[in-house]
Amino acid sequence: MLIVMQNNAAQKLIDAVCARIESLGFEPHSMPGAQRTAICITGNDGSVSKRHFADLHGIREIIQVSKPYKLTSNETQSTPTTVTVGSTNIGPGSFQIIAGPLHIESRDTAMRIAKALHEKGVTLFRANTHRPRMNPYSNMLSFDEGLTILSEIKAVTGMAVATDVEAASEVAQASGVADLLIVETHNMRHVNLLRALGKANVPVLLKRSSSATLQEFLMAAEYIMSGGNRQVILCDGGVCSFGEHSAYALDMTFVPALQQLTHLPVMMDPSQAAGSSFMVPALMAAAKSLGASGVLVDVHDDPAHSMTGGTQAITPEVL
Amino acid sequence: MLIVMQNNAAQKLIDAVCARIESLGFEPHSMPGAQRTAICITGNDGSVSKRHFADLHGIREIIQVSKPYKLTSNETQSTPTTVTVGSTNIGPGSFQIIAGPLHIESRDTAMRIAKALHEKGVTLFRANTHRPRMNPYSNMLSFDEGLTILSEIKAVTGMAVATDVEAASEVAQASGVADLLIVETHNMRHVNLLRALGKANVPVLLKRSSSATLQEFLMAAEYIMSGGNRQVILCDGGVCSFGEHSAYALDMTFVPALQQLTHLPVMMDPSQAAGSSFMVPALMAAAKSLGASGVLVDVHDDPAHSMTGGTQAITPEVL
Amino acid sequence: MLIVMQNNAAQKLIDAVCARIESLGFEPHSMPGAQRTAICITGNDGSVSKRHFADLHGIREIIQVSKPYKLTSNETQSTPTTVTVGSTNIGPGSFQIIAGPLHIESRDTAMRIAKALHEKGVTLFRANTHRPRMNPYSNMLSFDEGLTILSEIKAVTGMAVATDVEAASEVAQASGVADLLIVETHNMRHVNLLRALGKANVPVLLKRSSSATLQEFLMAAEYIMSGGNRQVILCDGGVCSFGEHSAYALDMTFVPALQQLTHLPVMMDPSQAAGSSFMVPALMAAAKSLGASGVLVDVHDDPAHSMTGGTQAITPEVL
Amino acid sequence: MLIVMQNNAAQKLIDAVCARIESLGFEPHSMPGAQRTAICITGNDGSVSKRHFADLHGIREIIQVSKPYKLTSNETQSTPTTVTVGSTNIGPGSFQIIAGPLHIESRDTAMRIAKALHEKGVTLFRANTHRPRMNPYSNMLSFDEGLTILSEIKAVTGMAVATDVEAASEVAQASGVADLLIVETHNMRHVNLLRALGKANVPVLLKRSSSATLQEFLMAAEYIMSGGNRQVILCDGGVCSFGEHSAYALDMTFVPALQQLTHLPVMMDPSQAAGSSFMVPALMAAAKSLGASGVLVDVHDDPAHSMTGGTQAITPEVL
Repeated sequence: MLIVMQNNAAQKLIDAVCARIESLGFEPHSMPGAQRTAICITGNDGSVSKRHFADLHGIREIIQVSKPYKLTSNETQSTPTTVTVGSTNIGPGSFQIIAGPLHIESRDTAMRIAKALHEKGVTLFRANTHRPRMNPYSNMLSFDEGLTILSEIKAVTGMAVATDVEAASEVAQASGVADLLIVETHNMRHVNLLRALGKANVPVLLKRSSSATLQEFLMAAEYIMSGGNRQVILCDGGVCSFGEHSAYALDMTFVPALQQLTHLPVMMDPSQAAGSSFMVPALMAAAKSLGASGVLVDVHDDPAHSMTGGTQAITPEVL
Repeated sequence: MLIVMQNNAAQKLIDAVCARIESLGFEPHSMPGAQRTAICITGNDGSVSKRHFADLHGIREIIQVSKPYKLTSNETQSTPTTVTVGSTNIGPGSFQIIAGPLHIESRDTAMRIAKALHEKGVTLFRANTHRPRMNPYSNMLSFDEGLTILSEIKAVTGMAVATDVEAASEVAQASGVADLLIVETHNMRHVNLLRALGKANVPVLLKRSSSATLQEFLMAAEYIMSGGNRQVILCDGGVCSFGEHSAYALDMTFVPALQQLTHLPVMMDPSQAAGSSFMVPALMAAAKSLGASGVLVDVHDDPAHSMTGGTQAITPEVL
Repeated sequence: MLIVMQNNAAQKLIDAVCARIESLGFEPHSMPGAQRTAICITGNDGSVSKRHFADLHGIREIIQVSKPYKLTSNETQSTPTTVTVGSTNIGPGSFQIIAGPLHIESRDTAMRIAKALHEKGVTLFRANTHRPRMNPYSNMLSFDEGLTILSEIKAVTGMAVATDVEAASEVAQASGVADLLIVETHNMRHVNLLRALGKANVPVLLKRSSSATLQEFLMAAEYIMSGGNRQVILCDGGVCSFGEHSAYALDMTFVPALQQLTHLPVMMDPSQAAGSSFMVPALMAAAKSLGASGVLVDVHDDPAHSMTGGTQAITPEVL
Repeated sequence: MLIVMQNNAAQKLIDAVCARIESLGFEPHSMPGAQRTAICITGNDGSVSKRHFADLHGIREIIQVSKPYKLTSNETQSTPTTVTVGSTNIGPGSFQIIAGPLHIESRDTAMRIAKALHEKGVTLFRANTHRPRMNPYSNMLSFDEGLTILSEIKAVTGMAVATDVEAASEVAQASGVADLLIVETHNMRHVNLLRALGKANVPVLLKRSSSATLQEFLMAAEYIMSGGNRQVILCDGGVCSFGEHSAYALDMTFVPALQQLTHLPVMMDPSQAAGSSFMVPALMAAAKSLGASGVLVDVHDDPAHSMTGGTQAITPEVL
């Protein structure tokens, strides 16, 4: 941490900051500069909160240097992590596709799409068993019914299956069926759920909140990893931005920035960001060239008659 | 809904869109314009999904007209809602303050702050019983211990108490103690929690997600109201934006825009948005002049030694 | 500047950074911490570019400490600046209103609105002489005609007049008529214009670009001040954000954050941010309570028949 | 245009809206729906301003349907435009690289980089002759000196050269030397400059403002095209967003969204968005796969000793 003093801060104010640092058990290093004095803190193993200095005067700015994430950092683990889902490896050197309908509408529809995907060579099937996110007036199958259908798809096609969990109480049941548990965008900050996933023995795909910074995203993954589950995949589906040309902005610079800091595999979700199927193939190609480890993509064999998410789903043929 | 055709769309493409609208049970109204044809849909009671037209050609744009929210709309209920918390009315014509420490650190600290606030005339006390949001390495009291302390504060000071709920499973227990349940920013899209709150008999203060549009915010409130609980307060604590001058952008235009569409009371959380206590008094004054129904504000009697959120907390004296 | 090394950076990499700092004429201070080494730079009078270290290895992050703005900073001038426009003081302790139609549509309309505002006690009249911003197909008066009308309004009503300048070549001519020159949002980064205004002997109201950070905004003002013109008013009309509830997000936290760093007066433009007149009165009241030095507000006596900006203009009666 | 009435709007309010539409010379089409009445407008050749209805009551929302851009639209010209710069075609089916240092620091440096790029097969050289954007305290060559150096580079290497114009007054002079004129991000809304470029007989590369929506970007291009110059290349260098992982968010969804609406070629500027050279190669590869027509990329043979933009420049070898 670096504490930058105002350029006219009196020596006694500087001394008070140094004394506070010492009282916290750390070591202050005062650096008188041409314009102002800055005070470095050493001896801290982790980040120090700014609040410890909130009552002191003469401070212009406090700059955090240490990062709060540890297990997700490639400073802690320098070799890239490969997460194995079913018999598919997700990690460096490969580009994997997880595909399926956004939600399970019925047993027959889901099975039909799954078979079509299996024929195209897809090995990872995903479908959400929950109702559409933010509309209380929609009807869907129950969580139990959804898992039963997924289980049947797995048995029939041999594909590994991935599905969403919405609450800590669902983790154990879902782990019995699914090969990969997905934390949707709107659940990235759902601490109880993250903690439960830290105890699960199934890999987790964590989607970035549409308002999460890089550090917030890594801290959410840190929750899962600190519970003991090291099989975490990061997935960016875009962030809120101005304009109406797509559902979310899918920022190309985020993937290399993330890869420079973490050993975890990074995937992208072009369907969520696009909101319209016409742009999904171009986004998938770009994600691959960018160096992502794969994509999560919505696929439906009859988007016009699907119950949810149809404008962004592509057909198995397009895939 | 309005379907805008490309300017060179052949008549048979226009006919196909009209036929699709009829097959959905609605009525199409084709409007040939100077540049292009637009097709209006009537007969629908609620919004129609764009996906029903995803496979048709010659469409340039689909514009949603009907809004999916109903119970939160002032078209459904034209008189403003007043929510009563303890003996305090939150609604039109008044400006209420809900104050307290961001988290309960210990029984003694919370009680001391509560007494100081009570002496200043505050009638609504809030404190979170959960650990700080996104750091798995922090330590806090248990939820049970937190509720016991809140219960004691209520008995000693007579203030109504508000606290956060993080999971559906906590709602019943918290309702037994708290006079107001708070859904934090990061839980606004937590559907299971919203559904449980719809069945609670205690008012709810719903905080806006830092990436929620006006419609998404109202839809989250719609979840609670559609479950039967009509005592909902909306509270904006800011949205993610560029720049580093504060924690979140607290957009002045959001409150009047919201008030024009809903009958629910709208509050603001200047502490969350500011991230620094120095600007909180000015934001509180501005929120009042803007026409908000009140503020949620972090208060600590010793910010420098608080365990969380201290940089944004003001002291009871400043309040 | 602080250079944060990777936690496993070898000593020779640290030495190379220190050597580079010395070669630039500054002094390095190496701080070995528990996790990693950070290197402070002193001796620099102004900010040091990160690019000087772009070819060195073992660096995790470079943190800027010194700020590039000087003349706008309240560290350079601790007393707040008051800018006098006509006989009206804009600065601490007062709240001034600059009002008028967004554009001059005709001599008669502008004069009629000016007289109505004068009767309401307004002392500062503004009108843009340029055509609407981003539509090449609109028709307006010429710059010369606009200035002639402004000159007449000034003579008839006695109000001080403010108008926009779009190019460096317009500054001299506009200075002969106007008491205040306005740099519109889309011109904040127009360096040639800023430089010409630095040589003008008329006060300048600089509007924030809808994508400017606090530092970028101050640097634009720095351009004007470094040219010799110290009469600068900062004005925030909002920034681009997600959602469609208004034209721009008008972030409440920006004004106090700016006031903490600069001695220049800070105004707000609620009309631009709102985009709809219904919310303008509430935003004006909030701006005043927030501590802004005034507002720039669009006023039209017949918004429905105005040629531009009518949806956001309020009438003189509402004002 | 579609005017959506409040659900309880009286018939006389609906009639008043229809009467206003007729008074503007257009035709109203009233559509009574289950929830509310919507009124379509036909007969308008171009967009109708919302302000014409600002004084009427009972209106819930006004939705624009017609778009203000014409010449940039692929409804006006269905075949994609190819822009020829020197002997290089920029348009569908190819991916071109425009490379060079962000600014000309000296004749020798620029010439050395140009020769290195020429050897690598680059045919389009770019260098800005202006000083760095937002710092008044930096020193650079004059515009004249810059153009002379560019002219010499063109003669020596045979590469086509591109350079930035900052003011309308520079267009004629720059057109005499450069094969492509660049409008930088901060000048996208600089109307005088766009108008001057509309009269130029040299192709223009227009960079997206970091706060421009898709429509605003097309309207800026419309300015140039409506002046007579049809040789316009659109280039996206990213938009402002939250977080600090890069300089700007480079939204993958923007390119296909733009390509669906316009016939103009679309390029990307990964260097501007990245702000750090390490991620530029991955962004270039992704831009190509995405279907962009090329990239504008900062290249310097000694980034550590460059005067500007060095952190984002890659070397000719990396390119």
